[in-house]
Amino acid sequence: MNITPWEVSGGEDGAIDYNKVIEQFGCNEFTPEIAQKYNLDHILFKRGIVFAHRDFTSALEKIQSGCKTIYLYTGRGPSSGSMHLGHAVPFLLCKYLQDKFKCKLVIQMTDDEKFIWKDLSLEETIKYGRENAKDIAAFGFDPSLTFIFSNTLYAHNFIKNTLTIEKSLTLKDVQKVFGFTDKSKIGQVSFPVRQIAPCYATSFPSYLPSDGICIIPCSIDQDPYFRLARDIAHKMNGIKPSTIYTYFLPALQGAHTKMSASAQETSIYLSDTPEAIKKKINKYAFSGGRDTLEEHRRLGGNPDVDVAYQYMKFFMEDTQKLEELRAGYIKGEVLSGEMKAASIRVIQEFVKEFQERRKKITEEVLEGFYVQ
Amino acid sequence: MNITPWEVSGGEDGAIDYNKVIEQFGCNEFTPEIAQKYNLDHILFKRGIVFAHRDFTSALEKIQSGCKTIYLYTGRGPSSGSMHLGHAVPFLLCKYLQDKFKCKLVIQMTDDEKFIWKDLSLEETIKYGRENAKDIAAFGFDPSLTFIFSNTLYAHNFIKNTLTIEKSLTLKDVQKVFGFTDKSKIGQVSFPVRQIAPCYATSFPSYLPSDGICIIPCSIDQDPYFRLARDIAHKMNGIKPSTIYTYFLPALQGAHTKMSASAQETSIYLSDTPEAIKKKINKYAFSGGRDTLEEHRRLGGNPDVDVAYQYMKFFMEDTQKLEELRAGYIKGEVLSGEMKAASIRVIQEFVKEFQERRKKITEEVLEGFYVQ
Repeated sequence: MNITPWEVSGGEDGAIDYNKVIEQFGCNEFTPEIAQKYNLDHILFKRGIVFAHRDFTSALEKIQSGCKTIYLYTGRGPSSGSMHLGHAVPFLLCKYLQDKFKCKLVIQMTDDEKFIWKDLSLEETIKYGRENAKDIAAFGFDPSLTFIFSNTLYAHNFIKNTLTIEKSLTLKDVQKVFGFTDKSKIGQVSFPVRQIAPCYATSFPSYLPSDGICIIPCSIDQDPYFRLARDIAHKMNGIKPSTIYTYFLPALQGAHTKMSASAQETSIYLSDTPEAIKKKINKYAFSGGRDTLEEHRRLGGNPDVDVAYQYMKFFMEDTQKLEELRAGYIKGEVLSGEMKAASIRVIQEFVKEFQERRKKITEEVLEGFYVQ
Repeated sequence: MNITPWEVSGGEDGAIDYNKVIEQFGCNEFTPEIAQKYNLDHILFKRGIVFAHRDFTSALEKIQSGCKTIYLYTGRGPSSGSMHLGHAVPFLLCKYLQDKFKCKLVIQMTDDEKFIWKDLSLEETIKYGRENAKDIAAFGFDPSLTFIFSNTLYAHNFIKNTLTIEKSLTLKDVQKVFGFTDKSKIGQVSFPVRQIAPCYATSFPSYLPSDGICIIPCSIDQDPYFRLARDIAHKMNGIKPSTIYTYFLPALQGAHTKMSASAQETSIYLSDTPEAIKKKINKYAFSGGRDTLEEHRRLGGNPDVDVAYQYMKFFMEDTQKLEELRAGYIKGEVLSGEMKAASIRVIQEFVKEFQERRKKITEEVLEGFYVQ
């Protein structure tokens, strides 16, 4: 297994063993009991898609005790103008948490990162960042509680914190966590500092109180950054950021892979038409069904590797219906084509609603998010 | 020998073999013939204190052919509010070249570097930078041709270039040149990029034409930065910066050392009183004279290791007088005390004139330099 912010590959059988990831990374399991105790009734929590965390429960305790300085931090690497379903996951979490706790949200566009890693000009990544900001705004965030910023355009405002982090981390610290070699670019070695900086409220002196407490919803591959952020918190404002980690939304080709923006035919984009969604799921979504109808009826299918089912786990609100599909699939009563048809309807509906909100995000609406 | 921007130490006998440095660094010797051919009549050129360069002659050829886009770049690491005599050297060269060729000058205050390397707060290095900017302005630069900027306050304006450099250099490139180890701080590894960026006129889009050609007067320990800058010029605006390198102004304790801002009793500051200068040179300046008067008269002194004489080489305008002192010293006619007395007068005069100009640098005058 190799899980870094830039590459995700499973073990020998291609699968990602998430329990092993928790163990390797040293974070905590997110259990159904936690969701229940704190009344976190979003499907991403209830269904265990949020599967790991660091100190999230202590942040929740603080909220329950009346703490008003909690803020959310998440980000987006603008490698293209199109965002896919997998990118939606942390924003859905942020939207839910913002609504529930009325907390502020800062969203970092890492246009610098994508410029360094990809064969893209800085103008392109900045432009993609601005387009992506509109997609992000379309998740329905409260503009008065949301700050979307570009690393290249805003970075000077948190230069004090980036320099302090640069002073606090050795090359060895960063190499150990990210596996950089002497062939790595200097920009690759120095970038993590800029992703770490927003973990401390002091990076936003005019926007957040200096004792602001940070919660970061993201997928598990981002943990290396925040492990470092927690390690050096005592040198910053003293407050370790909390994190909540989700599974990867699988690519169409397999339940144990990660949807990737750069692979057109493995991803469903937030800009896809209903027809495209239908075609992609029907044609490409890896099925947990049997080879023949007779076999399927007799032996049943496997929802755990069925991509159409997995997508519903992330995006279908109706839990009872989801359970019926799962049980029926295992028994062989629900066929692969039926599972796909259900999934298509859910994803089409999700994307349609998103696109309707997206249409309303004009340049002026975007300015309300204090985009830089 | 170990010569880096952060440490300068001589070989086994403590001395710096500058010929060996030229060979090791792979730069070119600056000869008296060059000074003569291009009519460079400043004492720092005439006396061979400028001893090495890269492509400086080709920049001079361009100037002679009518090129108007040459600019000068030099810098200052604001580790304290006080600058010493050694710091004056590149500014004297810049002043001379600016007057002679009417060219623009950009001056980088590396407050970020000093924050990372030293036990100083960022507020302190920024404050020192602003104080130092006044000292620098007092060298008499033309405000309409001079831009003094702070790395932390201006950096966002050249972020495109810093990122491109970060993308062009590998960790290995930088480790090879600067000797960083895995114990180095990330800030140390990423800082060189920011010192390299001003080598390309494109770092100053509103101030310089994009085909501006850069000349950098500095002492030889800065070569590693500009070697890298030249190596990657084809990835930037395509123009390799030229450099001119001076010897180190020696510390009071020895002719083969480098004056250091952090060692109070080895340095003469631009803020020192005439009495302090007198006391320091009389008490501390390493003498090339003999142990006894009788011996000195008989065997003569050695001006090449005599710090008082070396200071005059850098700062005494009257070349004939300097030659007489040298010849007299070798013959034993000029005594160590007389050499020191002459040196004290020269340095007192230099510092007095500087301080008179410095008094006139108000906050308003400073604004004329487009200080950020």
